[in-house]
Amino acid sequence: MKKISVLGSTGSIGTQTLDVAAKHSEHFQIEGLAAGGNTDLLLEQVRRFKPRKVSVATRELAERIQSEVPAGTEVFYGDQGLIEIAAGTDADMVVTAVMGSLGLPSTLAAIEAGKTIGLANKETLVTAGHIVTALAREKGVKLLPIDSEHSAIFQCLNGENRKDLASITLTASGGSFRDRTREELKHVTVEDALKHPNWSMGAKITIDSATMVNKGLEVIEAHWLFDLPYEQINVLLHPESIIHSFVEFRDTSIIAQLGNPDMRVPIQYALTYPERWDSPAQRLSLAEAGKLQFREMDFERFPCLRLAYECGKMGGTATTAFNAANEVAVARFLRKEISFLQIEDIIERVLERHHNIPEPELAEIEDCDKRTREAAAKL
Amino acid sequence: MKKISVLGSTGSIGTQTLDVAAKHSEHFQIEGLAAGGNTDLLLEQVRRFKPRKVSVATRELAERIQSEVPAGTEVFYGDQGLIEIAAGTDADMVVTAVMGSLGLPSTLAAIEAGKTIGLANKETLVTAGHIVTALAREKGVKLLPIDSEHSAIFQCLNGENRKDLASITLTASGGSFRDRTREELKHVTVEDALKHPNWSMGAKITIDSATMVNKGLEVIEAHWLFDLPYEQINVLLHPESIIHSFVEFRDTSIIAQLGNPDMRVPIQYALTYPERWDSPAQRLSLAEAGKLQFREMDFERFPCLRLAYECGKMGGTATTAFNAANEVAVARFLRKEISFLQIEDIIERVLERHHNIPEPELAEIEDCDKRTREAAAKL
Repeated sequence: MKKISVLGSTGSIGTQTLDVAAKHSEHFQIEGLAAGGNTDLLLEQVRRFKPRKVSVATRELAERIQSEVPAGTEVFYGDQGLIEIAAGTDADMVVTAVMGSLGLPSTLAAIEAGKTIGLANKETLVTAGHIVTALAREKGVKLLPIDSEHSAIFQCLNGENRKDLASITLTASGGSFRDRTREELKHVTVEDALKHPNWSMGAKITIDSATMVNKGLEVIEAHWLFDLPYEQINVLLHPESIIHSFVEFRDTSIIAQLGNPDMRVPIQYALTYPERWDSPAQRLSLAEAGKLQFREMDFERFPCLRLAYECGKMGGTATTAFNAANEVAVARFLRKEISFLQIEDIIERVLERHHNIPEPELAEIEDCDKRTREAAAKL
Repeated sequence: MKKISVLGSTGSIGTQTLDVAAKHSEHFQIEGLAAGGNTDLLLEQVRRFKPRKVSVATRELAERIQSEVPAGTEVFYGDQGLIEIAAGTDADMVVTAVMGSLGLPSTLAAIEAGKTIGLANKETLVTAGHIVTALAREKGVKLLPIDSEHSAIFQCLNGENRKDLASITLTASGGSFRDRTREELKHVTVEDALKHPNWSMGAKITIDSATMVNKGLEVIEAHWLFDLPYEQINVLLHPESIIHSFVEFRDTSIIAQLGNPDMRVPIQYALTYPERWDSPAQRLSLAEAGKLQFREMDFERFPCLRLAYECGKMGGTATTAFNAANEVAVARFLRKEISFLQIEDIIERVLERHHNIPEPELAEIEDCDKRTREAAAKL
């Protein structure tokens, strides 16, 4: 029986993690669940999975659900509540699926407590990759990727010698505006942007797919997760999202991981690693798919990806600034305050003013995050 | 320094094996070379690689080259000569790239002598899979596949648990007549048949690609090499031959091996396994390839593949009969004695009359082989 806590249990990855756990309920016990404000869904999850501890965003929400959770379930809230779910349970593994920069302190707490990490929070490695990977090494903690691209790379590296690796390539569907020119992007709406061709995901990540920021964040994550220089990390346009990513070895051999786009597969792989169990996902028929297409990535068309590489290579707080500026810009786009192309404009302008701090400490990262958000909100 | 003997050194696989060895000459020493009648090329190889022992098809050929080999190289001939190269040298590894059923006794001799096998001779496993795999297990000898499809499967299984394997899929280009109907096959010529779209190979195997017999033999090989029932072995049409084959796991995850069609990659992988070394092969650019296509295999269009599955499932001497009938029929087609479609006709008619012997001993396999050839020559 594997004991699991889920940070961000009511989000897209969180609910799918619980789906997987429910399919193999004889093997998984849910120790803790942390959510934000979706208390209806959280309460449903609490009744179903009977965790010992749950956490919500605020004290008010905690008080509101207190009477509705079963006896034996403790209720926490806020940043400390999130850390309690991350580090204060008997969980063997913590799935970090909260969105945004609040994933960092809780992930660090879980690593500190020796929990295996099922890593779905991008900001953890993007903003503090040097701190997180160093602590994981020190504590002997595994960081198991849940993102489909990183899971694919991780699977392709099974049984191989790292010294034989030539490069990795993350595939990118191109998002909802893949086939539009920059000219055509000028007047796209929020509704247009939210139609992702292949994956069903949250609003923020769907916009990040359309701007290619998402792939940029994945490139930075891959840098830390697989300890690779940016020169060995490529991105390739692959509209069908069937090859989830691949690795090339020095003998020119390429190993790729394929499947229908279904997040339950990489989630389950992180949960069952190094084993593979039966999955409810639909099996891929390449004959039915008919063809897989590939196109060179166009960094002119997707300037946010170029910016992500530049920030990644710069290191320090540059990636934090990139991420924070994007979070604010996307939120403003979703509120219809700015146009789609202004997202990248805001990121670029924020980065122009950014003063980079190399090897930042947590407080410096937090400070950079805060200042960048303030700046991005005003542009 | 790895010591290698090559059986069939002047053929397509043999010469490419020596190419690979020459690229890494500081790591490989050629102990023995066995060829058939191409003494000019063999002598060139002898001068270049300075093996201790060489062998040719006949006593006459041996006498003819005797004066031309350098001092320190012994000359052998015939079946015994082949066995001497297979088992009578200090080689750590023997690449079995002779064509046809004469590959079997020499491969068995090499396994008996404890040599790692780089397996390129299809007939070894097709006719005597039960004997060869049992002896390899007994002697603790590794059978490393050299065929691109089997090498792909072998690579995809790296670091995975066999119990999690759901199926393997061998890809098939469809050969030189992929896009022709059966009606259009009636009057194709030997010259047409020899134009393989992707791979540069010998004449026999190019015809076997067009009839899909080659894929049938690979299915039977895969059955023995990976110890899988035929129900777990699939074949998929993939015109570009870029995905060399793939495996599917129970979690629906597919791991595939890709590359440009270049036999030096799987050959080198067998030679360097479990390491990967730099290769002179051209790196694959999926963006340049643009697209990969897939089609369901059509067993009506390619009846020889259906026959191969049937023989494989039947076991015993059925696969020997299948292979022997095909060898004779292809030779007759290449001599323009029969039409292209008569190849499958001869195989089918031979198999109708075949009396199957389960778990045959070597003598029974040889007897079946001989009788089938006689029958196939007369049909």
